[in-house]
Formats: sequence, C-alpha cells, structure tokens
Amino acid sequence: MTVKIGIMGYGTIGKRIADAVMRMDDMELIGVIKQTPDYEGEVAISKGIKLYTYEDRVNKFEKAGIRVTGTINDLIKNVDVIIDATPDGVGAENKAKIYEPLGLRAIFQGGEEAEVADTSFNALANYDMAIGKRFIRVVSCNTTALSRLIGAFLIHGYKIRKVRAYLVRRGADPREFKKGPINDVVFNPATVPSHHGPDVQTVIPTIDIITMAVAVPTTMMHLHMVNIEFDGQVSKGEIMKILEETPRILLFNSASRKIESLAQIIEWARDLGRLRGDVMENALIEDSITVFQNELFLMQGVHQESIVVPENIDAVRAMFKLSSKWDSIRKTDLRLNLITTGKNYNLA
Amino acid sequence: MTVKIGIMGYGTIGKRIADAVMRMDDMELIGVIKQTPDYEGEVAISKGIKLYTYEDRVNKFEKAGIRVTGTINDLIKNVDVIIDATPDGVGAENKAKIYEPLGLRAIFQGGEEAEVADTSFNALANYDMAIGKRFIRVVSCNTTALSRLIGAFLIHGYKIRKVRAYLVRRGADPREFKKGPINDVVFNPATVPSHHGPDVQTVIPTIDIITMAVAVPTTMMHLHMVNIEFDGQVSKGEIMKILEETPRILLFNSASRKIESLAQIIEWARDLGRLRGDVMENALIEDSITVFQNELFLMQGVHQESIVVPENIDAVRAMFKLSSKWDSIRKTDLRLNLITTGKNYNLA
Amino acid sequence: MTVKIGIMGYGTIGKRIADAVMRMDDMELIGVIKQTPDYEGEVAISKGIKLYTYEDRVNKFEKAGIRVTGTINDLIKNVDVIIDATPDGVGAENKAKIYEPLGLRAIFQGGEEAEVADTSFNALANYDMAIGKRFIRVVSCNTTALSRLIGAFLIHGYKIRKVRAYLVRRGADPREFKKGPINDVVFNPATVPSHHGPDVQTVIPTIDIITMAVAVPTTMMHLHMVNIEFDGQVSKGEIMKILEETPRILLFNSASRKIESLAQIIEWARDLGRLRGDVMENALIEDSITVFQNELFLMQGVHQESIVVPENIDAVRAMFKLSSKWDSIRKTDLRLNLITTGKNYNLA
Amino acid sequence: MTVKIGIMGYGTIGKRIADAVMRMDDMELIGVIKQTPDYEGEVAISKGIKLYTYEDRVNKFEKAGIRVTGTINDLIKNVDVIIDATPDGVGAENKAKIYEPLGLRAIFQGGEEAEVADTSFNALANYDMAIGKRFIRVVSCNTTALSRLIGAFLIHGYKIRKVRAYLVRRGADPREFKKGPINDVVFNPATVPSHHGPDVQTVIPTIDIITMAVAVPTTMMHLHMVNIEFDGQVSKGEIMKILEETPRILLFNSASRKIESLAQIIEWARDLGRLRGDVMENALIEDSITVFQNELFLMQGVHQESIVVPENIDAVRAMFKLSSKWDSIRKTDLRLNLITTGKNYNLA
Repeated sequence: MTVKIGIMGYGTIGKRIADAVMRMDDMELIGVIKQTPDYEGEVAISKGIKLYTYEDRVNKFEKAGIRVTGTINDLIKNVDVIIDATPDGVGAENKAKIYEPLGLRAIFQGGEEAEVADTSFNALANYDMAIGKRFIRVVSCNTTALSRLIGAFLIHGYKIRKVRAYLVRRGADPREFKKGPINDVVFNPATVPSHHGPDVQTVIPTIDIITMAVAVPTTMMHLHMVNIEFDGQVSKGEIMKILEETPRILLFNSASRKIESLAQIIEWARDLGRLRGDVMENALIEDSITVFQNELFLMQGVHQESIVVPENIDAVRAMFKLSSKWDSIRKTDLRLNLITTGKNYNLA
Repeated sequence: MTVKIGIMGYGTIGKRIADAVMRMDDMELIGVIKQTPDYEGEVAISKGIKLYTYEDRVNKFEKAGIRVTGTINDLIKNVDVIIDATPDGVGAENKAKIYEPLGLRAIFQGGEEAEVADTSFNALANYDMAIGKRFIRVVSCNTTALSRLIGAFLIHGYKIRKVRAYLVRRGADPREFKKGPINDVVFNPATVPSHHGPDVQTVIPTIDIITMAVAVPTTMMHLHMVNIEFDGQVSKGEIMKILEETPRILLFNSASRKIESLAQIIEWARDLGRLRGDVMENALIEDSITVFQNELFLMQGVHQESIVVPENIDAVRAMFKLSSKWDSIRKTDLRLNLITTGKNYNLA
Repeated sequence: MTVKIGIMGYGTIGKRIADAVMRMDDMELIGVIKQTPDYEGEVAISKGIKLYTYEDRVNKFEKAGIRVTGTINDLIKNVDVIIDATPDGVGAENKAKIYEPLGLRAIFQGGEEAEVADTSFNALANYDMAIGKRFIRVVSCNTTALSRLIGAFLIHGYKIRKVRAYLVRRGADPREFKKGPINDVVFNPATVPSHHGPDVQTVIPTIDIITMAVAVPTTMMHLHMVNIEFDGQVSKGEIMKILEETPRILLFNSASRKIESLAQIIEWARDLGRLRGDVMENALIEDSITVFQNELFLMQGVHQESIVVPENIDAVRAMFKLSSKWDSIRKTDLRLNLITTGKNYNLA
Repeated sequence: MTVKIGIMGYGTIGKRIADAVMRMDDMELIGVIKQTPDYEGEVAISKGIKLYTYEDRVNKFEKAGIRVTGTINDLIKNVDVIIDATPDGVGAENKAKIYEPLGLRAIFQGGEEAEVADTSFNALANYDMAIGKRFIRVVSCNTTALSRLIGAFLIHGYKIRKVRAYLVRRGADPREFKKGPINDVVFNPATVPSHHGPDVQTVIPTIDIITMAVAVPTTMMHLHMVNIEFDGQVSKGEIMKILEETPRILLFNSASRKIESLAQIIEWARDLGRLRGDVMENALIEDSITVFQNELFLMQGVHQESIVVPENIDAVRAMFKLSSKWDSIRKTDLRLNLITTGKNYNLA
C-alpha cells in the first residue's frame, strides 16, 4: 500500500516533512497547502512539489507568478491523511473545521494540546500505542528528544526514579527574523515545571520528570542539561553501550573531535552534505556523560527544525499499520540517510 | 583605623571596587594601577582617582595626555593592602613577584587558583575563616552566588544532601567586543562537573555539589537553574522566609512585576539610578521557587560585573579585623545602597 | 513661569523624560500615565513620581499593590501640556480623542506622522519654528541625530549639496526581549530611501538626503555611516572645529581612548555615573571623520533610548516661550549633566 | 590536461574548495593538508578526500583514529599547484618556506597581502590578467563581491565616477564560537577608507572607491550598502538588465518573494539543497536597486563562507590556460549548480 499524503502548512516543519515523504517508497506526497506565495513555495515547485491553497488565496499566487495546482478541496479528496504542520493551535481548528467533518485522518505537531489526538507519539517510546489510530500527535522537538533519551533506558528494562531536565532553548528559527531575544535570557516560563515535563508524560505517563526552561539569542539548536536518577547504581559502561546502540541518538566527542559547541554539530551536518544541515538525531555530547552512583548527567543538542521529521514518517506507518516499530524506524532512518551504524537496530 | 588600599588592575571588577572603596568610611583608596591609557583611565581621573602604572608605561600615558600620579612602587609603599583585580592567573604572578617579596597583604579574585590565598572567601558563608588572614581570595561571580544561596540555608541550620546547579553563562561582558560566541551555545566545559562545583567547596568544604555550564551570546548576567535536595522535607513558606531575610538576595516577581527576563532585572537597576546599572545581589526569580517534598528548584540571575564587589569590601574588613561578619555586611550594603529592607540583618 | 507637565506613556522614552523634567527649575512633573502595573511603575513611585492610569485599570494597580494617585482625568486638569510618549500611532489617537477635544497642548514623539503636529522639531536645527506652537513633534532618534549633524554645518553657513546616510539600527531596546532579529541583518526596509531621509526633511525641508537602513541583533545604539557632499571644498580642520563646538555632539577617539565599538561608548557613560548609562549626545567617532575634497565621511553612534530627551525639554520651552534657542539648549544640557566644555555654546 | 591540486588548510574556505575541485572534470584533488584531527577531517575522509599533515602531527591523527595518507612532502611532489587556504598571513610564510624553494605554483586567498602574488584576481573583472601566472591571489569575500558588481558595469562600457560602499560585516563564521562581538557594533576599522576600497583597486586599479566597515553579531552573511556614481545619467531599466545578465549575481525580491533579511537568502539556499546552504553568488536585493539620475543605490548580501570558491576554480584555469574567461566561468557555474538561467553567459 502507498499512503497518499497531504501536508497542511509549509513552514520550518512542513517543508522538511514534504522532502522526507518524497524519499519513502510506501508514501506518496500529493501536495502541500500553503497560504502565502513566497520563495519557499517557488523552491517547492522547483522540486516537483504541488502547491494548493485556500480558494481566496489563489489570486495572490497568480499575481506573484507562483503556480498553484488547486485549492484545498482539490487536495483533500485525493489524500489518505493530512500531516498538519500549521502554527500552534491552528491544527485543532483545522481538525474541527476540516478533518473531522470530512472523516479525514490527521497527524498533528507538538504545538497542539495533547487532547487534539488519540495519542501523543514518539517512535522509540510508544510506537505501538499509535497503531491504527485516526489522530496522532507527534510531540514537540524538546519532548521528542527527552522521550527518546528516556525511552532508550526504559526499553532496556531500566527503572528511572526521577528525571530533571534544564532546557536552554534557541530564541527563534534561522528564518524567523522578528523574534527575539537579543542579548537576554528569558524565563520560558519562570514557573517550575515548564510545560515540557508534563508533555513528556503524554508519551511516557509513568515517568517522574521536572523541567525548567529559558530562551537565549541563538537559532541553532536547543541544549538540554539532563540529570537522570536511576533506581539503583549504574555504570558508565552500560550507559554508553545503550546510548551507542539506540537509533536516533548520536554521540559527539568534544575532546577528540573538537565538537565544542552546538554550532560545530550543525557544521558537521553541513559538511556531510545533509539537506539543510539538519540533525534529526539527539546530539549527545559524549564527554558530558557522567555517572555518580545512581545518577546520570549529560548534555544533548536538539535540532528544533528537524528532529520531529522521522517521527512524522513513523506516525504514518503506525496509523496505517504499514510496518512494525523497528521496521519503520530502520526504514525511515535508512531513507533519510541518518547514521545507522553499530548495533542500533538489533532490538526488533 | 582606616585601611589604605591600592587596586591592581582597573577593568570590569577593579573599577567597581574602586568606586565602592571610595564610599566606605573605614577605607581609603590610595590609587589604582593601570597598564593602558584609555577612556576608563580618563573617567577615573575625573572622579578623583589617582592612576599609577608600571615604570615603562609612564610614557604611554603622557603621550595620550592622561595623567599618572606615579609608578607602581610609589603606590605600594603607601598602602596596607592590594586588591588584585587582574586577569586570571596574573594575580598569582603578582603575588610571587611583588606581594610576597615586599611583605604586602593582598586580596585576589576568583580567576586565581584557590592555592593563591590562605582562604577562599564569601561573606555570608565563611567570613570568620578570613579574619586576620594575609592573603584572601574572593571567589568568582558564579561561586559567590552559589555560596550565598547555599549559605543562606546553612546558617539557619538546614542540612543539604545535594546541590545540582546548571549555569547558563553570558559569553562576554558588555565592554568585551572580541569575545563570542555569536549564535551558539558553547559547552563550558563539556565535562561534568564544571569547575564551579569544586570551587564552591573551597568556601563550603562539606557541600555535595555538581555543576554543569554552557556559555551563550549575551552580556547581561549569568542565569543559574538550581536544584537543592534537603535532608528531609521543607515547605515553600520556610524557604521563602529565609530567602527574603538573607542579605544580598533579592526576589524578583515575574508575574506581578513583569520581570520576565534577565534584561528586566538590569533595567530595574538602571531605572533605580544604580551606578552602571549594577545588581550586586543574587537576583532570584520568585515565581521559579518551587518545592517538591525535600527538593527546591529555582532560577537566579548573577550579575557577573558587580556581584563580587561587596565581598571584596568585606574581605578587607575581615583581613584587618575591622568589623564582625554581620556588622561588615550591614555596613557594606548600606553604603553601596543595596536593598536592606525586611529582617535581613537580624542574624547578627 | 513653571510649566506643569503630564507624561502619557512610561516606557523607554517616557520614563527618561520624566527624570529630565524633574531636574528642570522651570518645569514641574505633575504625574505620568501608565497602563500596566510593573517594576517600572514601582521604581517611579520610589522616586516620588505620581502614577495615573485609565479608570478601568485602577483595579489592576491596586491588585498588584502599586499605588495610583488618580485617573487620567485627574491628571489632565492639572497640566499645561502633555508629553505623549506612547507607541507609534497612539499619539495621533490620543490627540483626536483627548488633547484636541480638551484644548490641551501636546508634544509628540517621532513615531507619529509629521501631520500630527504644527511642526516637527529639533532644537539645534529649527527651534524657532516651534515657538508658541500648540502641537510639536520631536523627531525620532535617527532623525534627531541626522538633524543635529546637518544642522551643525547649516548654522555656520555651509551649503550642503547632498547627504547620503547608511543606518545600522539596533534590533530592540535592552528591555524588549520579544523583538529580533537573532543572527540576521534585516532590510529595514529594502527600498531606498528609507523613511529617515524624508523625515529629516520635515525638520530641514531644503536638504537633499538619501538614506538606507538595516537592523541588526544589538540593543546598544544605532550606528550611522554618513557621507556629506558640500558645495565646494572643505578642510578637515574647519569640520573638526565645528563639530567640537556644537552642543550635543561628542567626539570619541578610537585610537587614543580605545573606543573601538558602540559598547565602549555606553561603558564610558556607565563609568561616568550617568543615569541608566545614557548618551544623549551624538557620539561621533573622531577617527572616522575624513574629508576628500568636498566630501565628508564619518560614523556616529545614536543612543536610541535617550537622544530625544533633551529635545523634548527644549520643545516645552519653545512652546511656552520660556527661553530663546541657545538659552534653552544651554540650560537643558547643564541640568542633564551633558558635556558642555569648549566653545559649544558661543553661538547665542 | 587534468590539473593535480593540493589544498593547504582545510577550514571554512579550504573544505569548500576541496568539494568544488572534486566536481570539476579538468582538475583532480590529490589531497588536503590539515594540522588538527577533528570532525572536519573525519567527514573529509568519509567523502574520499585524502588527508596529509606535517610530519610532527602524524601522531596526533593516529591517536585520534583519523587516518592520514602521508605527510606534506608526500603530497607536494604529486601536485601541479597548491591552493593555499590558510589563515591570514600564513600563505606568505608558506610561499617563502615551501612554494618558492620547491618551484611550486600557488593560489592564495584575500587574507594575504597583494604582494604575495603576481596578480590579484576576480574572474569577472580581470580573468585575463591571471593567464599563465605562477602565483595568483583570489581576493577576499567583500572584495570579490564589490569587484563583480563594479565589473558588471565596466564590461558593458559604463564609466564610473565614484563608488562608495558601506560594509556591515558578520562578526564570525558559524563555526567560530570564540569570536565576537556580542551585542555590539565594532568599528572595523574606525578610519576611512577601510582596507576594502584599496583592495578592490588591486583588481580594478582605475576605480575611485571609498569604503567604510563595521562588524555586527551575526554569522550569516556580510551586507553591503553600495552607492555607484556613474559618469552621466543611467536608467533603472538598463541597470536591471545588466545585473540580470551577469553571472554570479542573483536578484532576490523582498516584496514578491518575502526575502526580507539575509537569513531568508540562506534559507532559500538550504531549501534548494545547496551543499552547506552556500550562496556563491552576489545576493542583490532587487527592491533596493534605486537610480537617481547618475547615482545607483543598492544592497547586496555576501556569503563570506563560499563566495570566493568559484573564483578559486577559475584561477586554476587561468593559471594553466585551461579555458578562456567565459568558458571557465560557465563551466564552473554549471558544475557548482549555480543559477545560470537568462542571458548571463552571452558575453563570451
């Protein structure tokens, strides 16, 4: 079966999912829905992506000389599922106005409330919960990264007593020039826990997790400083083994490879020739991994622009029962050229 | 007794200590030693501060039209103590070359190794350890802030099981235009613990503390996210009471006073008319103070340019036995116009 | 006569004008109108400033524990003039709704269209045009700086053929943490000329001026790179003499005083003890002043937070015919502790 | 003939030239010389690039587990030319120590003094000057962009009276996390003209050009605001035609394509799938192109990381007389996937 996909919203996330869908052999990108004619739409067309828009927006595109293939209605009748990558809260509106009335399936992003979907989703942590579901919510970039990290230990049977995570968020994406801060650290929010902790619990309900968050004037990646308290002593050796073997977790060595900042991680991806310089994996700083008795400390970089892309692909497979968990993860990663060396995929 | 003070190094810290010394009635600023003729020296003279320099630098000052009163030797014979505010590591060199051979007393900054001095110092945490000592090291901005916070609980008899602190450091001071990062988060260092944890132990040897640190592209303040695990349950009420009563700890309310970022804290100080917009107190974010059973979470802003200034003043008093701990703290704070409302100073 | 002043809006500009008015002996600050209870209002009260607000906002202040003296109506009946420092466009609304119906005089800021007032104003360039006017608009920070610079030559009888100015604007004020850009240079606007050139012509209608502008991720100051083409050759000597003698123009020497960036200029003001570290003068970079035949090139820093403050004071004097041009400028500068050395004020 | 190339220095520029050389069919990349084992070397190997290093550095690479093929001596005897992409000033040292004694040909970058080479080079402006030369210096990113822009008019026979260019430089490359400024605008230098004007004259000796430069806290691109005064009136139409037809000059429309900042230009390149998101062309802001009688004003973005890459390729061809000017430009651009639509290459 080939799942026919429409993408609603063609911004930072939407355009990446579009490129990813086009690389899959069990999915077909029917088109993307876009509101504004701009360079992003023009580039999309140059890649063979079909643009659709709202009826009252067609004129704008024509005026700008950017071809649209049809209206949203034209697209909708030809797809099996909509991946909704609209701004926070718009997905819920779309569900009420469009998807539910028309009996359409949909995948939402983490900017929506958990209630929008039948399940919140992270491939590594709870793939099976999403099998056959009609509405799935792929959790946000920060929640995805935390869920993968915590999930890596849980699937190996580790018991976690408590997670404390401290998030240093990038202030804006590279393309967002109106957002700040400039020369400031913003409490994001001041209250504890930030929303990220409870959001991880939508994926892993049993976890005890506290998060704090600030925003800083960078566009590169989020940075997490994480403290995991296990139920009993652990060794650095076993921790390293698990992290090395888990898909979508990469280890970067600061001392031996001169990866001394988040920008070096992006530079690595640019040098490798990755599309847009994306890093869809958790970028763990190997030297930061430290164990004191039953406590683990580490830093990880989280590429907010792209980290949820593989999970959106996996969510489609779970929704349509195309593959089992590990088959889907392996397939997604291979086709997205993620790093898949080592024993990462032996867990099936 | 009036202690005669010379200041070695007139940068970010040195110039602030100079202004502070001039406000004290039990100290006299004899002069400051400066290497480079520049606007900072010119402004110093306009305030009545006498400049001294190395013999081979006198020419440079004359050429620039900035008056020097004498050479380093002229200054040294007229002072009781040198406060050394030179860059990291230079203090130790000065000790070996100048202070020790001449039998001079000296106060060093936190950029020096702890071994440079007879004791590392924080007024709230270990004032009495410094009484009568010949060489005292005032710990760095981050260590000062952590020592005050931890000290606040220890002096009330609380038992602390473990402190975990996550430091988001400003990349440079406002005047340092060559330092980065730009658009990056730097592991500072990647390894755990960062040097800050062990440094707190030079002041409070018994504390179990782990720290992690990154640097970001701001110049405003450092931001600490702190987790203190007490030995037994605590209530938010008692925690708040202690923090409100402790000198050099201020509470800023994000919700009711719209203090939503570090820049707002500096703006508050600028509006108040504080010299240079300095905030010499720990700036605790009141809304972040959260208690879960025996664990406290909070955020605090740390003004790296000025937070160690009052401790340098207190260190002089301890060295020369001018005052007892609480008398010195109270006197320093009053004369520096720090906030001294409430029951802050009832601990004497 | 003492002019009774109310200030509408208590943000970056409003609070500075309030402090300035309080330093004048021919003006009295009756109060300021503020919409939101926050730390800025709390600090204002601590300085003895009376807060007024809209009737439906009184509750909010009471709830926050910040005292208001009365409502906007209470204030208005006791003032001779309102200085309106509200956000762009709100001044025009206030004029239509409040000032005109009540027959109140008002001074507006440069965010309003020129049509809001009887004249646009810069003290050096066109003080006499504002004498006795009922509505005066003090032009924006960038326009003020350009008008002073051009005015300095015009009042000495120089003929200017053309001005070309290139503005590198700060992205946000220090207190504005939501505005960007981060890591970007924004065309501000892309089209030529930017609005600044025409805006200078509201003050100096005869000048031929082209401007281009971009915004960058800083909060410190704007930076202008200016090219003035005179009608005939000029010498660097005569240019320097004029700039040295003109009030509200300061020369900073990069080579001899190590003023190598805009941050050094602010650092100089902080060190001097200026309130909030403000620089109300044009900050010319002396080393950049270069003459090729009939063309002058130079750089100037423009402190967007404070540069219009003295002009607001002068505008009051012009409106109420309190002083002649040079008397007002001299008086304002003396009371604001601006630099008034040299022959600056010999032009009266 | 296939020219055998070695690259000395594998940083921002060196690694891009390496990738570009590998795409050419008349050149062969023998290897690159690298001093430090790091992630950049590891990625190079994964692309099939051979690493060479100094004899005393071999150990470091072995220890880090990064394979080196040989020492610098091994490389040198197998190449026809070295492209030297070492830091400023090192190229001249290498010439004296290595290239001249061994009779090697070399291409230098713009960080070297003009005297290092027989000619300074820009493909569009003076390709023929470099034919057969032994040492060629490809001018810096800013000079390359200005030379292309000026060259575009000169090759069409336009007479230029004067160029005034205002450079807003990025503070550091994305990978350079130690360089600033943070929250500052640095005079770069304060004096006028900056070195860029004279540097353009090393390529186009007859041009009258003045430049001013500042550095800002971004890593994206430089931004030039340029004013060209022609000898006689010009029309916007003819200017546009020339710019549209000139290779390595792209027009970006701010109004119709929502390219409102430099980050959007890089985002466009990322979306297109360009390696590292590079923009090797001058990025002209179409809406900024404005003509007043004989004067042209415009803005252009200059991608400092990559803009000199095509010129290095062309310099090889000129040195070895592989192609004529327009053949080389066309070939380079096609193989680097630069935009080559329109009549750009009709000038041959």
